Amino acid sequence: MIEPFDDSYFMRKALQEAELAYEKGEVPVGAVIVVDNKIIARGHNLTETLNDVTAHAEMQAITAGANFLGGKYLKDCTLYVTLEPCQMCAGALYWSQISRIVYGARDLERGCINLKTKLHPKTKLEGDVLAEEAGALLKRFFITRRNLN
Amino acid sequence: MIEPFDDSYFMRKALQEAELAYEKGEVPVGAVIVVDNKIIARGHNLTETLNDVTAHAEMQAITAGANFLGGKYLKDCTLYVTLEPCQMCAGALYWSQISRIVYGARDLERGCINLKTKLHPKTKLEGDVLAEEAGALLKRFFITRRNLN
Repeated sequence: MIEPFDDSYFMRKALQEAELAYEKGEVPVGAVIVVDNKIIARGHNLTETLNDVTAHAEMQAITAGANFLGGKYLKDCTLYVTLEPCQMCAGALYWSQISRIVYGARDLERGCINLKTKLHPKTKLEGDVLAEEAGALLKRFFITRRNLN
Repeated sequence: MIEPFDDSYFMRKALQEAELAYEKGEVPVGAVIVVDNKIIARGHNLTETLNDVTAHAEMQAITAGANFLGGKYLKDCTLYVTLEPCQMCAGALYWSQISRIVYGARDLERGCINLKTKLHPKTKLEGDVLAEEAGALLKRFFITRRNLN
C-alpha cells in the first residue's frame, strides 16, 4: 500500500510555509503541526513583519495548535519544521509535551541539539527530512540579502 | 542622594504583575521591562487563561517592549522577572539581545542557569532580588492548589 502521508509529505507543507516567509523578506522557516495525518496548525517566521523576536514559525504553530485542540498540551502531535528549532522554540516545545519533532536542515550554531536544550521526556526528535530543500531555501535567502546590502 | 529607582523598586513592580497572575489562578510570575528608569512593558503568566504554553510573563513583556520601542532588539533594557527564566524565555531573551536580566527567585529544576541556556554576549544576568517575596508567593500558590485538589 502506498502511504501518501509520510514525513516528506508534511515537510513539504512546512516548506510551503517557509516560502511564504521568504516572499515577505523573512528568514524562510516554516512549520506545521499534525495529528492523525491532519494538519491542525501552520506557521512561518514573522520576526521582521511583527518586530518581534518571539515570532518564530514554531511558536506560532504551537499557539495555533493549542488553540485548535482547546488545551495547551500537544499530545499525539508531530511538529514539522524546516530548520532545527532554536533554544526558545525547543523550550516552548518542552512545555507543550509534544510527542514528536521532525526538522529539515540542521542549525549547528543556534539549534537546540548543539546548545543542549532540554526536551520533554515524552518528545522524540528526528531530522534531516528534506534537509537539502530547506537548506537551499535559506541559502538563497541569505545570498539575495547579502547582494542587496 | 536617595535613589528610589533601584532593582528592588522595579522587582516590586514585577511582583505586582505576579499578584495579578495569582488572582487569575495562574502560576504567579510577573515581569517588567525598564529603560532609563521607565517601565515600557509589563507581563504576567497567562498560560492557563490563554491555553498557551508560550504565554509566560517574560514572553509577553518582550513582545510588548519591542512594540513600544518599534524595533525587535531590547537594547539598553533591563528585564525584571520574579522567577529565573526558563529555557524558552532565556532563548527569547537571547534573540532580543537585552542588556540585563534581573530575576527574583531561582528555579533550580527548570531555570536557564542549571539548564545552561545560552544568553547573548551582550546580556548580563543577575538575581536574588526580593527572592524571598517571589518564592513565598509561588509557595502560597502551590500549597493552595494542592489543598484544592
